[in-house]
Amino acid sequence: MATHKLVVSPLPRVFLNGITHASRPTAAVLIQHHSQPFSTTPRTSLKEFFVEHDHPHIRKTEAAWQHPIYTPEQMAAVSISHRETRNMSDRVALLAVRFLRSSLDFVSGYRHDKAVADGTKAAGAATQAFAMDEKKYLVRNIFLESVAGVPGMVAGMLRHLHSMRRMKRDGGWIETLLEESYNERMHLLIFLKMGEPGFFMRAAVLGAQGVFFNALFFSYLVSPRTVHRFVGYLEEEAVITYSREIADLDAGKLPKWEKMRAPEIAVSYYKMAEGRQSMRDLLLHIRADEAKHREVNHTLGNLDQKEDPNPYVSTYKDEGKPHPCKDIRFLKPKGWEREEVI
Amino acid sequence: MATHKLVVSPLPRVFLNGITHASRPTAAVLIQHHSQPFSTTPRTSLKEFFVEHDHPHIRKTEAAWQHPIYTPEQMAAVSISHRETRNMSDRVALLAVRFLRSSLDFVSGYRHDKAVADGTKAAGAATQAFAMDEKKYLVRNIFLESVAGVPGMVAGMLRHLHSMRRMKRDGGWIETLLEESYNERMHLLIFLKMGEPGFFMRAAVLGAQGVFFNALFFSYLVSPRTVHRFVGYLEEEAVITYSREIADLDAGKLPKWEKMRAPEIAVSYYKMAEGRQSMRDLLLHIRADEAKHREVNHTLGNLDQKEDPNPYVSTYKDEGKPHPCKDIRFLKPKGWEREEVI
Ligand SMILES: [Fe+2]
Ligand SMILES: [Fe+2]
Ligand SMILES: [Fe+2]
Ligand SMILES: [Fe+2]
Repeated sequence: MATHKLVVSPLPRVFLNGITHASRPTAAVLIQHHSQPFSTTPRTSLKEFFVEHDHPHIRKTEAAWQHPIYTPEQMAAVSISHRETRNMSDRVALLAVRFLRSSLDFVSGYRHDKAVADGTKAAGAATQAFAMDEKKYLVRNIFLESVAGVPGMVAGMLRHLHSMRRMKRDGGWIETLLEESYNERMHLLIFLKMGEPGFFMRAAVLGAQGVFFNALFFSYLVSPRTVHRFVGYLEEEAVITYSREIADLDAGKLPKWEKMRAPEIAVSYYKMAEGRQSMRDLLLHIRADEAKHREVNHTLGNLDQKEDPNPYVSTYKDEGKPHPCKDIRFLKPKGWEREEVI
Repeated sequence: MATHKLVVSPLPRVFLNGITHASRPTAAVLIQHHSQPFSTTPRTSLKEFFVEHDHPHIRKTEAAWQHPIYTPEQMAAVSISHRETRNMSDRVALLAVRFLRSSLDFVSGYRHDKAVADGTKAAGAATQAFAMDEKKYLVRNIFLESVAGVPGMVAGMLRHLHSMRRMKRDGGWIETLLEESYNERMHLLIFLKMGEPGFFMRAAVLGAQGVFFNALFFSYLVSPRTVHRFVGYLEEEAVITYSREIADLDAGKLPKWEKMRAPEIAVSYYKMAEGRQSMRDLLLHIRADEAKHREVNHTLGNLDQKEDPNPYVSTYKDEGKPHPCKDIRFLKPKGWEREEVI
């Protein structure tokens, strides 16, 4: 454990230039917190490191895709899950995810308690040696979200070009893939409101994007099914990570996040209700998004990549029965089987 | 002129395997036409060369982006236009478009009457030597639309990756760029309902996409402003082409298209009203789309590529004044100047 700790400690300091004011609740925020619900007082204390100019003509620029509304009950019900591998393609995908995450864990000093990952121990009860703090989680989240938006964009672009080149309809897949990549980019922008990445981290993101983009580009040309399964497994890990952050928060291990409000960009993107705009609410939303991507990609990985329409933008003959949809009403952690939906 | 004709004639036969039934109006369609408005009788005579399966669960798969409604008056008002070059970047963009179109014209046997292109002669009065028929236009349209969806996707993807890599907001550009590429792909799918491309044409599209994608990818990294201007000029040409098709149709030079109904995919995509579902109505819609892309890209080419928000997804302080929007209420053929909109 000692060798492990040696790796852990110094890195976040290099990765993050500094945690912004957002994570240090001011007196005003604390008072607001005590007199729930949160007021909508403008929080000028939030660091705007991507400055929003005031323009002479433009009032506001809207988000591209409207986020579906998740209810608190639906978000609380999101759980860790694993889809067993069934064939060689699945095993390749799982192996790739395992390799990526152990590399990243090593560098970022994050480790799961094995029992937590297995689901045999509650996430909050993770061994002390693997303890994370707000800064470490933030570094990890920013890094992960900065590459998470790549696969959806690569897949959407390749299917778009393929449709035009082969002169075939796409069946509506492109939209869902692009929307996923947009949602991941929003996750990144939200976390960036909480801390400004340092030089080392920026360099890491740059390199990782280059490698990841190219690897996904060629993998998707060879086997789109494997790439969707890969993203499905990646999202299983994302749900574990965010579940652990929520559990740590509840266990009092992340005191700086306890009183924190979600950044304004998140409040408006998720249309978070008054009184439900805390950091914890934000983590619940993001975890639910990841659970949705987990379902979507496992489902897409089950389909005929060339012929099947996208179940997520289709209407169903029997709309009364549960079916794939954009929100998390009928969340299926292991994805829908082809026979259930096409 | 004789040498020109030698090039023209044989090619469309190689390009197109055959015009589908859609372009040969059946008796039923003719009767429907005479008893205006068109009925909504299912047209089983339309060749479905990308077969739509009947699925056990799925009823329908929706279009990704809802198309804005254009009124007949707005579409009729669309006109040929040219934005003068103002700097070196503009001149490079215009030169690239001129080079591309003379190459394509040579191969596809299409030529503008110079006076028509200048706007000094009506499009319908083009010299006889440059006469086109339905098949030649269809070949040209299919080829053009199969590459037209590339720039929006390349630009959208690069801005998405850039935003994540540089950890900066995008300002809403990505959405409009992706939507444009989707709209172009719909144009392609619509024309494909009218004729099946042959082997030679498929090979040409494949090669063109490869070259065009890479050229745009690197050009956009070097100078996004030049690429937007380039697309603006390209769309000026597209408006000329579709204006000429409409004029030829009105002049009785395209008899097969006169009585033709727009394919079902177009009727539902554009939500074409009863009685306004003819081939002519379709060409008016597509020309208006191209005029919109012309405006959008000339406008984007006028902006600060890194800092300015996208005027097309913004709300304005003075909503009463004309401003950029998604439909063609306030069409500005030469684009909006930066000072007018930001
Ligand atoms: Fe994410
Ligand atoms: Fe994700
Ligand atoms: Fe087009
Ligand atoms: Fe266009």
